[in-house]
Amino acid sequence: MTDYYVPALSQLIDHFESLPSIGHKTAQRLAFYVLSLPQERAQSFADSILHAKSAVRCCDVCQNLTDSDVCHICSSPKRDNGIICVVEGPKDVISMEKTGEFNGLYHVLHGVVSPMDGISADDIRVKELLPRLNGNVSEVIMATNSGVEGEATAIYIARLIKPMGVKVTRIAQGIPIGADLEFTDKITL
Amino acid sequence: MTDYYVPALSQLIDHFESLPSIGHKTAQRLAFYVLSLPQERAQSFADSILHAKSAVRCCDVCQNLTDSDVCHICSSPKRDNGIICVVEGPKDVISMEKTGEFNGLYHVLHGVVSPMDGISADDIRVKELLPRLNGNVSEVIMATNSGVEGEATAIYIARLIKPMGVKVTRIAQGIPIGADLEFTDKITL
Repeated sequence: MTDYYVPALSQLIDHFESLPSIGHKTAQRLAFYVLSLPQERAQSFADSILHAKSAVRCCDVCQNLTDSDVCHICSSPKRDNGIICVVEGPKDVISMEKTGEFNGLYHVLHGVVSPMDGISADDIRVKELLPRLNGNVSEVIMATNSGVEGEATAIYIARLIKPMGVKVTRIAQGIPIGADLEFTDKITL
Repeated sequence: MTDYYVPALSQLIDHFESLPSIGHKTAQRLAFYVLSLPQERAQSFADSILHAKSAVRCCDVCQNLTDSDVCHICSSPKRDNGIICVVEGPKDVISMEKTGEFNGLYHVLHGVVSPMDGISADDIRVKELLPRLNGNVSEVIMATNSGVEGEATAIYIARLIKPMGVKVTRIAQGIPIGADLEFTDKITL
């Protein structure tokens, strides 16, 4: 499809098209837009890809994305290091932080156990959680998503932690605030 | 909104969000996807942006996008250099080329005259068209889009060319092949 373009442009279109949720038409539009950008904006876009790729890494402690060895949440003296909230991905940390209600630490699994997709507990960051529990951690909140895999992962980790004498709780499940009972699915009710 | 992310990541999200038709959620998803790419793929993405920006330029003759001084259509001995098809943008050339029915040359205006947006004839590539008509060009086909601006631009250029004794035609307008009369707007009918 991109044979009609000059090679440099069709390469760029192909790159955009390889991104999730970007089709061929959108990829064309994005590529043309990039061509129309001033040189310094295009340069800064390219740089930001490489910079993000090289600078962003996982926190040694909580596995959340950071640009230093230990992320700003783990290294903050203001956070309550007695509570760890276990989430599936970095986006979940953002969601929790936006509420401003949680003052503990996080642990990011980077996935959930999913035998259907061949993802076992060894493929996610469970083993990094256990060493964190030999201290003053009194509670672990399992905040994985409420799908089948999220539930299974929460139960798996809860069983793993239980012998260590740490309280394990699950994030509350129910009707979202402002939602109508009428439109809530049977299982939630 | 992106303050919760590390700076390198939030910069990348901002860059994606500045692209047309990309909202904040999509920008986040794209940025996370780029982070998950292998290093060489991310490098090649960044390179393709810079390469497209530096290599792609306008053909000296027809103003279409190319990576050489004169594009492959203008320099092809197989094309009929007696007919020039005037289009609004490089995408229109692709659309025409895909039909495989047109064997003449193109002229890309890079826009249309639009007083509402402050775009005059001097802002588009009209002046580059006139010198091309002092030769063996016998026909100019105006293939601008059929909106108000496209029509006005076609009429403007036709008047400009008329004194030079070149035949000016307009691309046929009507019901698209396969379309129902029922769903065709009044003006087209």
